[in-house]
Amino acid sequence: MKNSIFSKLSPKEPKFFPMLEELASVLSEVSHLITECVRTYNYDRSVDYFKQIKDLERKGDRVSNTIFEELNTTFITPFDREDIHDLANVLDDVIDFINSCAKRIVMYHPKKMPEPATTLGELLISAADYIGSSVKELDTLQKNSDKIKDNCSKLHEIEHTADDVYEHFIMGLFENPTDPLEIIKLKEIMHSLEQATDAAERVAKIIKTIIVKYS
Amino acid sequence: MKNSIFSKLSPKEPKFFPMLEELASVLSEVSHLITECVRTYNYDRSVDYFKQIKDLERKGDRVSNTIFEELNTTFITPFDREDIHDLANVLDDVIDFINSCAKRIVMYHPKKMPEPATTLGELLISAADYIGSSVKELDTLQKNSDKIKDNCSKLHEIEHTADDVYEHFIMGLFENPTDPLEIIKLKEIMHSLEQATDAAERVAKIIKTIIVKYS
Amino acid sequence: MKNSIFSKLSPKEPKFFPMLEELASVLSEVSHLITECVRTYNYDRSVDYFKQIKDLERKGDRVSNTIFEELNTTFITPFDREDIHDLANVLDDVIDFINSCAKRIVMYHPKKMPEPATTLGELLISAADYIGSSVKELDTLQKNSDKIKDNCSKLHEIEHTADDVYEHFIMGLFENPTDPLEIIKLKEIMHSLEQATDAAERVAKIIKTIIVKYS
Repeated sequence: MKNSIFSKLSPKEPKFFPMLEELASVLSEVSHLITECVRTYNYDRSVDYFKQIKDLERKGDRVSNTIFEELNTTFITPFDREDIHDLANVLDDVIDFINSCAKRIVMYHPKKMPEPATTLGELLISAADYIGSSVKELDTLQKNSDKIKDNCSKLHEIEHTADDVYEHFIMGLFENPTDPLEIIKLKEIMHSLEQATDAAERVAKIIKTIIVKYS
Repeated sequence: MKNSIFSKLSPKEPKFFPMLEELASVLSEVSHLITECVRTYNYDRSVDYFKQIKDLERKGDRVSNTIFEELNTTFITPFDREDIHDLANVLDDVIDFINSCAKRIVMYHPKKMPEPATTLGELLISAADYIGSSVKELDTLQKNSDKIKDNCSKLHEIEHTADDVYEHFIMGLFENPTDPLEIIKLKEIMHSLEQATDAAERVAKIIKTIIVKYS
Repeated sequence: MKNSIFSKLSPKEPKFFPMLEELASVLSEVSHLITECVRTYNYDRSVDYFKQIKDLERKGDRVSNTIFEELNTTFITPFDREDIHDLANVLDDVIDFINSCAKRIVMYHPKKMPEPATTLGELLISAADYIGSSVKELDTLQKNSDKIKDNCSKLHEIEHTADDVYEHFIMGLFENPTDPLEIIKLKEIMHSLEQATDAAERVAKIIKTIIVKYS
């Protein structure tokens, strides 16, 4: 048990795991909301979706701030500290990009929402699932490191797929240019979604770092 | 006195406080300059404002580089080191965003400057005041932690207000679209100002971290 | 020899140097490719250049991931670890911005490529040379610290020149506005190149940090 994240963290600091799980669950909620928002796009409803997402984003902010404060006042070794800090931070980033997407929809009021937005949303839901499952098994790392590694590969694949979806969408957007303002709006809205999947992959990288060290 | 930033830093390293105060004072100067620049907008004058802001930005850069070098050659404990590093870094970020706003004004040459730019500028002046006052009291943290906490809440409120100002401005910009290029210009100029208030809130978070650890 | 990066790293961990050199060599390759790509701009060929750059970017990604994994499983002191981590990370950033430039060219399909793109590309080639030469001499730091310091000043100058080139280009772009979409495309393509030179200067700052500590 020496050198395992379980022995290093759980007995002393079991409270970090529930907080990280809470962050992952906020991420799951906002992923579903943004996907509904873009799938059934209607401006007035998007204002409501943004409110819900913003509230969840602030909830996530409070959870990660609590994690940071606990890390600063709790004695645990520096590298554990750093990994938990990074994990909370990047989970926060994914949520932020989703919030930023919802905010841009409300600020820009695009005429239509393109179908690939739903594709990116669904990729995010699936990324949030893999993240949630990995975070849940962090405290029993030794038993489940293979499953977590699988999840991380899946997050890597999701990022590549999202990248392709985004690239093809932007190419199409500029191939048949219409209203320049609509093009700018959609480009930036889609970019937030793509950045969210990028950040989801960074979550995978941090989790892999933890596995390398402790499993 | 054990565990206080005063006992940990001041006796050994009193030189960090004056340098952090110098950075905060550069921030205050550029906040005033950018606000004047957007309030009295006239292209030729904005070129002069940019020059002054750029000079100050480089001065700030030199100060933070000195801080980083001193941190690397001075024996102090890792967490103090990290906090001072982060604080100098984010102060630098606020100054950079203000510099970037001035640069965009000069590069884009917008026809007019919208009133909310002045509102954001004034919010930045006020953020710089709270930051300056907090940094000044860092070396007597035990006596003043309540005041510093108040300042941090104020920086949080300023960020929220700036966010609303920015959001409403962008919404209005796209509601009555005119020249797409003017829209892009103003969107990006205003975005730099909004990002500066975001970074100012990150300063508050780092200061709160220091308070949690040492007061 | 006490306190030197040679005595601290080389004997125990000679493998970090070849990996950092490999990253620097990937950077050199992508700098040449992007410069060719913009100098001889032709859309169909740019698709091929992007493929080559993307492959190299992924190779660089694998190298830096190996560096991060080795850092996590190798016993070396925290500050060495951090510096190597930062160095690999920022080398990765420069490569990413170059990749992002190639990707934007392919996604946006601009009508023409402006001459200053070649100027920025050549500045990047020259930055990659100074970086490569500095990284090669890191393991014999004591003998060559003056040369490395010179290289770092050169990287600083390159960043300033690139900044001016970019600023003047954007000013010209908005002075005689034509098609707003072409303006947006070129602005973002040129911005990636300018960000790459910014990141190259951050490499210089990290190398200077290492010199301050160990030479």
